[in-house]
Amino acid sequence: MRGAILYGPRDVRFEERETPKIIKPTDAILRISATCVCGSDLWPYRGINPVPQPTPMGHEYCGIVEEVGSAVTSIKPGQFVIGSFFASDNTCPNCQVGYQSSCQHAEFVGTAQAPLLRVPLADGTLVATPAVPSDDLIPSLLTLSDVMGTGWFAADAARVTPGSIVAVVGDGAVGLLGVLSAQQMGAARIMAMSCHPSRQKLAREFGATDIVTERGDEGVARIKELTNGIGADSVLECVGTQESMMQAINSTRKGGHVGYVGVPHGVELNGEKLFFAHVHLHGGPAPVRRYLPELIKLVWKKKINPGKVFDLTLPLDQVAEGYRAMDERRAIKTLLRP
Amino acid sequence: MRGAILYGPRDVRFEERETPKIIKPTDAILRISATCVCGSDLWPYRGINPVPQPTPMGHEYCGIVEEVGSAVTSIKPGQFVIGSFFASDNTCPNCQVGYQSSCQHAEFVGTAQAPLLRVPLADGTLVATPAVPSDDLIPSLLTLSDVMGTGWFAADAARVTPGSIVAVVGDGAVGLLGVLSAQQMGAARIMAMSCHPSRQKLAREFGATDIVTERGDEGVARIKELTNGIGADSVLECVGTQESMMQAINSTRKGGHVGYVGVPHGVELNGEKLFFAHVHLHGGPAPVRRYLPELIKLVWKKKINPGKVFDLTLPLDQVAEGYRAMDERRAIKTLLRP
Repeated sequence: MRGAILYGPRDVRFEERETPKIIKPTDAILRISATCVCGSDLWPYRGINPVPQPTPMGHEYCGIVEEVGSAVTSIKPGQFVIGSFFASDNTCPNCQVGYQSSCQHAEFVGTAQAPLLRVPLADGTLVATPAVPSDDLIPSLLTLSDVMGTGWFAADAARVTPGSIVAVVGDGAVGLLGVLSAQQMGAARIMAMSCHPSRQKLAREFGATDIVTERGDEGVARIKELTNGIGADSVLECVGTQESMMQAINSTRKGGHVGYVGVPHGVELNGEKLFFAHVHLHGGPAPVRRYLPELIKLVWKKKINPGKVFDLTLPLDQVAEGYRAMDERRAIKTLLRP
Repeated sequence: MRGAILYGPRDVRFEERETPKIIKPTDAILRISATCVCGSDLWPYRGINPVPQPTPMGHEYCGIVEEVGSAVTSIKPGQFVIGSFFASDNTCPNCQVGYQSSCQHAEFVGTAQAPLLRVPLADGTLVATPAVPSDDLIPSLLTLSDVMGTGWFAADAARVTPGSIVAVVGDGAVGLLGVLSAQQMGAARIMAMSCHPSRQKLAREFGATDIVTERGDEGVARIKELTNGIGADSVLECVGTQESMMQAINSTRKGGHVGYVGVPHGVELNGEKLFFAHVHLHGGPAPVRRYLPELIKLVWKKKINPGKVFDLTLPLDQVAEGYRAMDERRAIKTLLRP
């Protein structure tokens, strides 16, 4: 089969790769219905994370179960399933408290930009939809594999509750779905930080009540101005840079909560500043598996339509253009169909 | 009157200072019943925090109200009161959510090692006991001004609840009272990290179930060993160094909580490490005022005896020896009686 391989900065190729097969009895093989390019794929694509060797890409996926290993009991061939970018056994102590992305047996699922995918720990990782979905639901279901689950975790980690005053740092797909998540959790006010008109528009559709175009200290000042000098109850950090992290911390009220899901790159937090900021800080790789059953229900009942973040759909063999469009910010997020 | 003045490293003198008087109508003047030396007083005493000029010392206090300003309504002369080291109006938005130590009008109360003390914002800062206490209760009531409230905040910020598995980093007075706080909050297991026999003994009296003598990575390994490789649910960081902070974070289970109250000195947290640690982090200057009513009740009914942390009592004029004993770790905490 052919799949995406990253060779180095801005060099993604669609090339022959080994066809995946069952290796362990707990594996499943999926025929991919849709996959996509993640904001975090841009770190190695841009050369910010090193790429020491040609690397298969892709960690967001949904599709039809093609085959399962002999030990798999809860997932059957023919089912439509979604899984997290971290395979998990869903039984270890970390999984039991809802941190499946830190499963004691976690394995990164990193070869999804391809027609077929091996998923380890299938019983603990994959969740089946009530039936094979109609085609129009597939983009939204695909988002539950990472980007929507990550936005949801950001809002959950920032303790958004009914009536919360929320700010969202980052207008990528995760930030936008953080807005949607905060709206679903009952936020009274959602201030989206964005200076891109198309992303502002989508943020409004997802429930943003205010758009803040300023960044850094000016962005903080504007959030303070909008909150009578107090700051937001809950701030979602969806970028992962030093500037975005400090923007999030400084936009939060005393005793408020920062949920951070942008993979930190070069971030160093000064202990004394954090101490006097008096905020709660929680984040990390989103335990997407925890939220899958709940989010599948919301998509299935058409209560949410997170698939709107895909503003570019390409056949999988044009994956290189999918990366390029996101790198150049011509697209928010690229959907790929095998 | 005479009071403590820090001139420079290891140079505390008991000298003539200006007698405090009402400056603003919201002030009160207290006649100090007892004051003490704080672990944080040792930072400037040891020259780690600079002392640019001779500085009056002391921020833990309780005593009898001598006089109140014309705007003070809830506190009366003759009452026995306790207040926080940060004066607060107790009405601003930060106070309303329980973060009085980040009050919008906060003022540090830093001249308490003296017979008389001016407390700003008396109505919002001071809490009266049900009656003038008997002498034996005074050490425990004094701890509520900072050290016990700070230990309590550490446990609260680390979300200790009935059944929690807790670790405490730091065997100073705050750490020891963190143990007591965790015990009061119903922790099932409390692992106190200490290598000093006298402090271990007090930790056990306060409710520690295990003593961990290892530090740093070895301390982390020991906590992991004691928790089936998982880590503690709640870890109280009561020191403020890079080593202690990382020891706390790395001893916490995925999804667990770190409550940090040691004023950070030279601490830098790596964003990526924190991200994958997957912990909740909360701390800062303890909002002691929030807990005063509850903690006064516990002391008044003799449910807790936090005054046990004072293992040295001196007349106030021997304040220099009080600092020295703590600096040399001959004393856990020094009580001073004017």
